[in-house]
Amino acid sequence: MTGHLYIVAAPSGAGKTTLVRLLLENDPDICLSVSTTTRLPRPGEQDGREYHFVDVPIFLEHIGEGAFLEWAEVHGNYYGTSKQWIAEQMEAGRDVLLEIDWQGAQQVRKAFPAAIGVFILPPSLVTLQERLSGRGTDSAETIARRMAAARDEMRHVDEFDYVIINDDLHQALANLQSVIFASRLQYESQRQRHSALFAALLR
Amino acid sequence: MTGHLYIVAAPSGAGKTTLVRLLLENDPDICLSVSTTTRLPRPGEQDGREYHFVDVPIFLEHIGEGAFLEWAEVHGNYYGTSKQWIAEQMEAGRDVLLEIDWQGAQQVRKAFPAAIGVFILPPSLVTLQERLSGRGTDSAETIARRMAAARDEMRHVDEFDYVIINDDLHQALANLQSVIFASRLQYESQRQRHSALFAALLR
Repeated sequence: MTGHLYIVAAPSGAGKTTLVRLLLENDPDICLSVSTTTRLPRPGEQDGREYHFVDVPIFLEHIGEGAFLEWAEVHGNYYGTSKQWIAEQMEAGRDVLLEIDWQGAQQVRKAFPAAIGVFILPPSLVTLQERLSGRGTDSAETIARRMAAARDEMRHVDEFDYVIINDDLHQALANLQSVIFASRLQYESQRQRHSALFAALLR
Repeated sequence: MTGHLYIVAAPSGAGKTTLVRLLLENDPDICLSVSTTTRLPRPGEQDGREYHFVDVPIFLEHIGEGAFLEWAEVHGNYYGTSKQWIAEQMEAGRDVLLEIDWQGAQQVRKAFPAAIGVFILPPSLVTLQERLSGRGTDSAETIARRMAAARDEMRHVDEFDYVIINDDLHQALANLQSVIFASRLQYESQRQRHSALFAALLR
Protein backbone atom coordinates (compact mmCIF):
# COMPACT_ATOMS: atom_id res chain seq x y z
CA MET A 1 0.00 0.00 0.00
CA THR A 2 1.47 3.34 -1.04
CA GLY A 3 0.42 6.71 0.34
CA HIS A 4 0.63 10.02 -1.45
CA LEU A 5 2.94 12.93 -0.76
CA TYR A 6 1.45 16.41 -0.99
CA ILE A 7 3.48 19.59 -1.23
CA VAL A 8 1.51 22.67 -0.20
CA ALA A 9 3.01 26.08 -0.93
CA ALA A 10 1.69 29.63 -0.83
CA PRO A 11 2.82 33.20 -0.38
CA SER A 12 2.48 34.60 3.16
CA GLY A 13 -1.02 35.98 3.47
CA ALA A 14 -2.75 33.28 1.44
CA GLY A 15 -4.07 31.52 4.55
CA LYS A 16 -2.17 28.28 4.05
CA THR A 17 -1.53 27.50 7.73
CA THR A 18 -5.20 27.71 8.74
CA LEU A 19 -6.26 25.70 5.70
CA VAL A 20 -3.77 22.92 6.38
CA ARG A 21 -4.72 22.83 10.07
CA LEU A 22 -8.41 22.40 9.18
CA LEU A 23 -7.56 19.70 6.67
CA LEU A 24 -5.55 17.71 9.20
CA GLU A 25 -8.23 18.07 11.88
CA ASN A 26 -10.82 16.64 9.50
CA ASP A 27 -8.81 13.86 7.89
CA PRO A 28 -7.11 11.29 10.14
CA ASP A 29 -5.54 9.59 7.11
CA ILE A 30 -3.12 12.39 6.35
CA CYS A 31 -0.30 13.66 8.53
CA LEU A 32 2.06 16.60 8.47
CA SER A 33 5.68 15.81 7.83
CA VAL A 34 7.64 15.60 11.09
CA SER A 35 10.93 17.50 10.77
CA THR A 36 14.26 16.62 12.37
CA THR A 37 15.80 19.32 14.57
CA THR A 38 18.77 19.96 16.82
CA ARG A 39 16.89 22.36 19.08
CA LEU A 40 15.93 21.05 22.51
CA PRO A 41 12.40 19.73 23.10
CA ARG A 42 10.08 22.21 24.83
CA PRO A 43 7.84 21.05 27.67
CA GLY A 44 5.15 18.77 26.29
CA GLU A 45 6.92 18.08 23.00
CA GLN A 46 7.48 14.44 22.19
CA ASP A 47 10.18 12.89 20.04
CA GLY A 48 8.64 11.72 16.76
CA ARG A 49 5.48 13.76 17.21
CA GLU A 50 6.42 17.48 17.01
CA TYR A 51 9.96 16.78 15.82
CA HIS A 52 12.61 14.12 15.62
CA PHE A 53 15.11 15.49 18.14
CA VAL A 54 18.78 14.77 17.41
CA ASP A 55 22.10 16.34 18.44
CA VAL A 56 24.28 18.41 16.12
CA PRO A 57 26.85 15.69 15.22
CA ILE A 58 24.03 13.32 14.18
CA PHE A 59 22.35 16.08 12.16
CA LEU A 60 25.62 16.89 10.37
CA GLU A 61 26.11 13.19 9.67
CA HIS A 62 22.60 13.09 8.12
CA ILE A 63 23.49 16.07 5.93
CA GLY A 64 26.65 14.29 4.82
CA GLU A 65 24.67 11.17 3.93
CA GLY A 66 22.17 13.20 1.87
CA ALA A 67 19.42 12.04 4.23
CA PHE A 68 17.48 15.31 4.05
CA LEU A 69 15.14 16.42 1.33
CA GLU A 70 15.96 19.91 2.48
CA TRP A 71 17.51 21.45 5.58
CA ALA A 72 18.19 24.90 7.02
CA GLU A 73 19.81 26.58 9.99
CA VAL A 74 17.53 28.99 11.84
CA HIS A 75 18.73 30.95 14.91
CA GLY A 76 21.56 28.47 15.47
CA ASN A 77 19.37 25.37 15.27
CA TYR A 78 19.18 22.93 12.37
CA TYR A 79 15.90 21.80 10.83
CA GLY A 80 15.54 19.17 8.12
CA THR A 81 13.04 16.92 6.36
CA SER A 82 14.12 13.28 6.34
CA LYS A 83 13.70 11.39 3.08
CA GLN A 84 13.56 8.06 4.85
CA TRP A 85 10.83 9.08 7.28
CA ILE A 86 8.61 10.23 4.39
CA ALA A 87 9.34 7.10 2.38
CA GLU A 88 8.40 4.95 5.41
CA GLN A 89 5.09 6.76 5.91
CA MET A 90 4.20 6.38 2.26
CA GLU A 91 5.13 2.71 2.20
CA ALA A 92 2.85 2.22 5.21
CA GLY A 93 0.04 3.71 3.11
CA ARG A 94 -0.09 7.01 4.96
CA ASP A 95 -0.55 10.30 3.14
CA VAL A 96 2.03 12.91 4.11
CA LEU A 97 1.72 16.65 3.68
CA LEU A 98 4.69 19.01 3.47
CA GLU A 99 4.28 22.74 4.03
CA ILE A 100 7.14 24.18 2.09
CA ASP A 101 8.21 27.03 -0.23
CA TRP A 102 8.85 26.74 -3.98
CA GLN A 103 12.55 26.01 -3.47
CA GLY A 104 11.81 23.19 -1.04
CA ALA A 105 9.15 21.94 -3.45
CA GLN A 106 11.70 21.66 -6.24
CA GLN A 107 13.97 19.59 -3.96
CA VAL A 108 11.10 17.34 -2.92
CA ARG A 109 10.02 16.73 -6.52
CA LYS A 110 13.54 15.54 -7.35
CA ALA A 111 13.38 12.87 -4.63
CA PHE A 112 9.65 12.08 -5.03
CA PRO A 113 8.55 12.81 -8.60
CA ALA A 114 5.03 11.54 -7.85
CA ALA A 115 4.53 14.22 -5.18
CA ILE A 116 1.31 16.16 -5.75
CA GLY A 117 1.86 19.93 -5.65
CA VAL A 118 -0.86 22.28 -4.43
CA PHE A 119 -0.45 26.05 -4.50
CA ILE A 120 -2.72 28.35 -2.47
CA LEU A 121 -3.45 31.82 -3.85
CA PRO A 122 -5.17 34.76 -2.16
CA PRO A 123 -8.45 35.86 -3.78
CA SER A 124 -7.18 39.30 -4.86
CA LEU A 125 -4.18 41.59 -4.80
CA VAL A 126 -6.03 43.92 -2.39
CA THR A 127 -6.69 41.07 0.06
CA LEU A 128 -3.05 40.03 -0.10
CA GLN A 129 -1.89 43.62 0.53
CA GLU A 130 -4.25 43.93 3.50
CA ARG A 131 -3.07 40.65 5.00
CA LEU A 132 0.57 41.60 4.57
CA SER A 133 0.05 45.05 6.10
CA GLY A 134 -0.27 43.51 9.54
CA ARG A 135 -1.78 45.67 12.28
CA GLY A 136 -0.87 48.94 10.60
CA THR A 137 2.25 49.32 12.76
CA ASP A 138 4.73 48.12 10.13
CA SER A 139 6.72 50.49 7.92
CA ALA A 140 5.92 50.87 4.23
CA GLU A 141 9.32 49.36 3.52
CA THR A 142 8.60 46.23 5.57
CA ILE A 143 5.27 45.77 3.81
CA ALA A 144 6.88 46.30 0.40
CA ARG A 145 9.48 43.66 1.25
CA ARG A 146 6.72 41.19 2.20
CA MET A 147 4.89 41.90 -1.06
CA ALA A 148 8.05 41.31 -3.06
CA ALA A 149 8.59 37.98 -1.26
CA ALA A 150 4.96 36.99 -1.94
CA ARG A 151 5.38 37.79 -5.64
CA ASP A 152 8.60 35.75 -5.79
CA GLU A 153 6.73 32.79 -4.34
CA MET A 154 3.69 33.18 -6.61
CA ARG A 155 5.89 33.31 -9.70
CA HIS A 156 6.32 29.54 -9.22
CA VAL A 157 2.62 28.67 -9.20
CA ASP A 158 2.97 27.00 -12.61
CA GLU A 159 5.25 24.34 -11.09
CA PHE A 160 2.30 22.98 -9.09
CA ASP A 161 -0.37 20.49 -10.17
CA TYR A 162 -3.31 22.20 -8.48
CA VAL A 163 -4.20 25.76 -7.56
CA ILE A 164 -6.65 26.66 -4.81
CA ILE A 165 -7.92 30.21 -4.47
CA ASN A 166 -8.55 30.91 -0.82
CA ASP A 167 -11.53 33.25 -1.03
CA ASP A 168 -13.92 31.41 1.28
CA LEU A 169 -12.08 29.22 3.81
CA HIS A 170 -14.64 26.41 3.77
CA GLN A 171 -14.74 26.33 -0.02
CA ALA A 172 -10.94 26.28 -0.11
CA LEU A 173 -10.93 23.39 2.39
CA ALA A 174 -13.46 21.48 0.26
CA ASN A 175 -11.22 22.07 -2.75
CA LEU A 176 -8.13 20.77 -0.97
CA GLN A 177 -10.10 17.74 0.20
CA SER A 178 -11.25 17.05 -3.38
CA VAL A 179 -7.63 16.95 -4.52
CA ILE A 180 -6.76 14.49 -1.77
CA PHE A 181 -9.87 12.33 -2.14
CA ALA A 182 -9.39 12.15 -5.92
CA SER A 183 -5.78 11.02 -5.58
CA ARG A 184 -6.94 8.18 -3.32
CA LEU A 185 -9.24 7.07 -6.14
CA GLN A 186 -6.42 6.69 -8.65
CA TYR A 187 -6.27 3.24 -10.18
CA GLU A 188 -3.08 2.15 -8.42
CA SER A 189 -4.26 3.33 -4.98
CA GLN A 190 -7.60 1.60 -5.35
CA ARG A 191 -6.02 -1.63 -6.62
CA GLN A 192 -3.80 -1.72 -3.56
CA ARG A 193 -6.50 -0.72 -1.07
CA HIS A 194 -9.08 -3.17 -2.47
CA SER A 195 -6.75 -5.95 -3.56
CA ALA A 196 -9.15 -8.74 -2.50
CA LEU A 197 -12.03 -7.19 -4.45
CA PHE A 198 -9.87 -6.68 -7.54
CA ALA A 199 -8.71 -10.29 -7.33
CA ALA A 200 -12.29 -11.60 -6.99
CA LEU A 201 -13.68 -9.50 -9.82
CA LEU A 202 -10.80 -9.99 -12.26
CA ARG A 203 -9.93 -13.64 -11.64
CA MET B 1 -11.08 28.26 -21.51
CA THR B 2 -10.83 24.50 -21.91
CA GLY B 3 -13.21 21.98 -20.41
CA HIS B 4 -12.41 18.41 -19.48
CA LEU B 5 -13.55 15.21 -21.13
CA TYR B 6 -14.51 12.33 -18.85
CA ILE B 7 -14.89 8.76 -19.98
CA VAL B 8 -17.00 6.67 -17.61
CA ALA B 9 -17.04 2.91 -18.08
CA ALA B 10 -18.30 -0.01 -16.00
CA PRO B 11 -19.57 -3.55 -16.34
CA SER B 12 -23.37 -3.94 -16.40
CA GLY B 13 -24.54 -4.18 -12.82
CA ALA B 14 -22.09 -1.63 -11.39
CA GLY B 15 -24.75 1.08 -11.19
CA LYS B 16 -23.10 3.46 -13.66
CA THR B 17 -26.29 4.86 -15.18
CA THR B 18 -27.80 5.93 -11.84
CA LEU B 19 -24.50 7.38 -10.69
CA VAL B 20 -24.03 9.44 -13.85
CA ARG B 21 -27.65 10.65 -13.72
CA LEU B 22 -27.19 11.87 -10.12
CA LEU B 23 -23.92 13.57 -11.05
CA LEU B 24 -25.51 15.46 -13.95
CA GLU B 25 -28.54 16.48 -11.85
CA ASN B 26 -26.22 18.00 -9.24
CA ASP B 27 -23.64 19.64 -11.49
CA PRO B 28 -24.84 22.09 -14.16
CA ASP B 29 -21.28 22.54 -15.45
CA ILE B 30 -20.98 19.06 -16.93
CA CYS B 31 -23.04 17.61 -19.76
CA LEU B 32 -23.47 14.20 -21.28
CA SER B 33 -22.14 13.79 -24.79
CA VAL B 34 -24.95 14.21 -27.34
CA SER B 35 -24.74 11.45 -29.96
CA THR B 36 -25.56 11.73 -33.64
CA THR B 37 -28.21 9.30 -34.92
CA THR B 38 -30.16 8.40 -38.03
CA ARG B 39 -33.23 7.25 -36.12
CA LEU B 40 -36.24 9.56 -36.22
CA PRO B 41 -36.90 11.92 -33.29
CA ARG B 42 -39.51 10.67 -30.84
CA PRO B 43 -42.20 13.05 -29.56
CA GLY B 44 -40.58 15.61 -27.26
CA GLU B 45 -37.04 14.96 -28.46
CA GLN B 46 -35.17 18.00 -29.69
CA ASP B 47 -32.32 18.17 -32.20
CA GLY B 48 -29.08 18.92 -30.35
CA ARG B 49 -30.51 17.98 -26.94
CA GLU B 50 -31.25 14.24 -26.93
CA TYR B 51 -29.46 13.60 -30.24
CA HIS B 52 -28.15 15.29 -33.33
CA PHE B 53 -30.63 13.91 -35.89
CA VAL B 54 -29.25 13.39 -39.39
CA ASP B 55 -30.25 11.24 -42.38
CA VAL B 56 -28.34 8.16 -43.49
CA PRO B 57 -26.38 9.77 -46.39
CA ILE B 58 -25.09 12.49 -44.06
CA PHE B 59 -24.16 9.91 -41.42
CA LEU B 60 -22.27 7.82 -43.97
CA GLU B 61 -20.48 10.96 -45.17
CA HIS B 62 -19.44 11.67 -41.55
CA ILE B 63 -18.08 8.11 -41.27
CA GLY B 64 -16.12 8.65 -44.49
CA GLU B 65 -14.65 11.87 -43.13
CA GLY B 66 -13.60 10.20 -39.89
CA ALA B 67 -15.87 12.61 -38.01
CA PHE B 68 -16.88 10.07 -35.37
CA LEU B 69 -14.91 9.03 -32.34
CA GLU B 70 -16.87 5.82 -32.53
CA TRP B 71 -20.05 4.70 -34.25
CA ALA B 72 -22.30 1.65 -34.36
CA GLU B 73 -25.39 0.33 -36.11
CA VAL B 74 -28.14 -0.83 -33.76
CA HIS B 75 -31.45 -2.24 -35.06
CA GLY B 76 -30.94 -0.60 -38.45
CA ASN B 77 -30.14 2.86 -37.04
CA TYR B 78 -26.74 4.47 -36.84
CA TYR B 79 -25.36 6.09 -33.68
CA GLY B 80 -22.10 8.00 -33.44
CA THR B 81 -20.11 10.38 -31.23
CA SER B 82 -18.94 13.44 -33.10
CA LYS B 83 -15.35 14.54 -32.49
CA GLN B 84 -16.13 18.10 -33.50
CA TRP B 85 -19.09 18.48 -31.14
CA ILE B 86 -16.95 17.35 -28.18
CA ALA B 87 -14.06 19.61 -29.19
CA GLU B 88 -16.46 22.57 -29.42
CA GLN B 89 -17.90 21.93 -25.96
CA MET B 90 -14.43 21.66 -24.45
CA GLU B 91 -13.23 24.83 -26.19
CA ALA B 92 -16.27 26.61 -24.74
CA GLY B 93 -15.06 25.51 -21.29
CA ARG B 94 -17.76 22.89 -20.77
CA ASP B 95 -17.00 19.54 -19.21
CA VAL B 96 -18.31 16.62 -21.25
CA LEU B 97 -18.97 13.11 -19.99
CA LEU B 98 -19.05 10.04 -22.23
CA GLU B 99 -20.68 6.81 -21.06
CA ILE B 100 -18.84 4.22 -23.06
CA ASP B 101 -17.28 0.74 -22.95
CA TRP B 102 -13.56 -0.05 -22.86
CA GLN B 103 -13.35 -0.28 -26.64
CA GLY B 104 -14.98 3.11 -27.10
CA ALA B 105 -12.70 4.46 -24.37
CA GLN B 106 -9.62 3.36 -26.32
CA GLN B 107 -10.91 5.19 -29.41
CA VAL B 108 -11.66 8.33 -27.41
CA ARG B 109 -8.20 8.36 -25.82
CA LYS B 110 -6.62 8.27 -29.29
CA ALA B 111 -8.47 11.45 -30.29
CA PHE B 112 -8.37 13.12 -26.84
CA PRO B 113 -5.30 11.93 -24.90
CA ALA B 114 -6.16 14.27 -22.00
CA ALA B 115 -9.51 12.54 -21.44
CA ILE B 116 -9.93 11.48 -17.82
CA GLY B 117 -11.02 7.85 -17.47
CA VAL B 118 -13.19 6.69 -14.57
CA PHE B 119 -14.11 3.06 -14.07
CA ILE B 120 -16.98 2.02 -11.80
CA LEU B 121 -16.74 -1.33 -10.01
CA PRO B 122 -19.40 -3.21 -8.02
CA PRO B 123 -18.58 -3.68 -4.31
CA SER B 124 -18.35 -7.48 -4.50
CA LEU B 125 -18.65 -10.45 -6.82
CA VAL B 126 -21.83 -11.53 -5.02
CA THR B 127 -23.46 -8.12 -5.55
CA LEU B 128 -22.53 -8.21 -9.22
CA GLN B 129 -23.96 -11.72 -9.60
CA GLU B 130 -27.19 -10.66 -7.90
CA ARG B 131 -27.56 -7.59 -10.08
CA LEU B 132 -26.92 -9.60 -13.24
CA SER B 133 -29.38 -12.33 -12.26
CA GLY B 134 -32.29 -10.00 -12.99
CA ARG B 135 -35.67 -10.98 -11.59
CA GLY B 136 -34.82 -14.64 -11.38
CA THR B 137 -36.58 -15.39 -14.68
CA ASP B 138 -33.43 -15.59 -16.78
CA SER B 139 -31.70 -18.86 -17.66
CA ALA B 140 -28.41 -19.81 -16.05
CA GLU B 141 -26.86 -19.52 -19.50
CA THR B 142 -28.06 -15.93 -19.95
CA ILE B 143 -26.69 -14.98 -16.55
CA ALA B 144 -23.38 -16.70 -17.27
CA ARG B 145 -23.13 -14.77 -20.54
CA ARG B 146 -23.71 -11.48 -18.70
CA MET B 147 -21.07 -12.39 -16.10
CA ALA B 148 -18.57 -13.19 -18.88
CA ALA B 149 -19.29 -9.82 -20.52
CA ALA B 150 -18.85 -8.04 -17.17
CA ARG B 151 -15.50 -9.77 -16.65
CA ASP B 152 -14.36 -8.80 -20.14
CA GLU B 153 -15.17 -5.17 -19.36
CA MET B 154 -13.54 -5.22 -15.91
CA ARG B 155 -10.33 -6.67 -17.36
CA HIS B 156 -9.68 -3.18 -18.74
CA VAL B 157 -9.95 -1.33 -15.43
CA ASP B 158 -6.20 -0.67 -15.47
CA GLU B 159 -6.60 1.53 -18.56
CA PHE B 160 -8.52 4.08 -16.48
CA ASP B 161 -7.16 6.89 -14.31
CA TYR B 162 -9.64 6.51 -11.46
CA VAL B 163 -11.63 3.66 -9.95
CA ILE B 164 -14.82 4.14 -7.97
CA ILE B 165 -16.30 1.29 -6.00
CA ASN B 166 -20.06 1.65 -5.98
CA ASP B 167 -20.90 0.26 -2.56
CA ASP B 168 -22.92 3.16 -1.19
CA LEU B 169 -24.47 5.28 -3.96
CA HIS B 170 -23.99 8.60 -2.18
CA GLN B 171 -20.38 7.82 -1.33
CA ALA B 172 -19.77 6.80 -4.94
CA LEU B 173 -21.35 10.06 -6.12
CA ALA B 174 -19.13 12.06 -3.74
CA ASN B 175 -16.12 10.18 -5.13
CA LEU B 176 -17.05 10.93 -8.72
CA GLN B 177 -17.58 14.58 -7.80
CA SER B 178 -14.13 14.72 -6.15
CA VAL B 179 -12.53 13.54 -9.37
CA ILE B 180 -14.35 16.23 -11.34
CA PHE B 181 -13.81 19.03 -8.80
CA ALA B 182 -10.11 18.17 -8.53
CA SER B 183 -9.62 18.30 -12.29
CA ARG B 184 -11.14 21.79 -12.32
CA LEU B 185 -8.46 22.81 -9.80
CA GLN B 186 -5.59 21.79 -12.06
CA TYR B 187 -3.14 24.62 -12.70
CA GLU B 188 -4.08 25.16 -16.34
CA SER B 189 -7.86 25.18 -15.64
CA GLN B 190 -7.46 27.64 -12.81
CA ARG B 191 -5.14 29.91 -14.79
CA GLN B 192 -7.73 30.10 -17.56
CA ARG B 193 -10.75 30.51 -15.24
CA HIS B 194 -9.09 33.19 -13.09
CA SER B 195 -6.95 34.88 -15.73
CA ALA B 196 -7.51 38.38 -14.32
CA LEU B 197 -6.47 37.28 -10.81
CA PHE B 198 -3.38 35.49 -12.13
CA ALA B 199 -2.41 38.58 -14.11
CA ALA B 200 -2.85 40.87 -11.08
CA LEU B 201 -0.92 38.62 -8.69
CA LEU B 202 1.91 37.73 -11.08
CA ARG B 203 2.46 41.02 -12.88
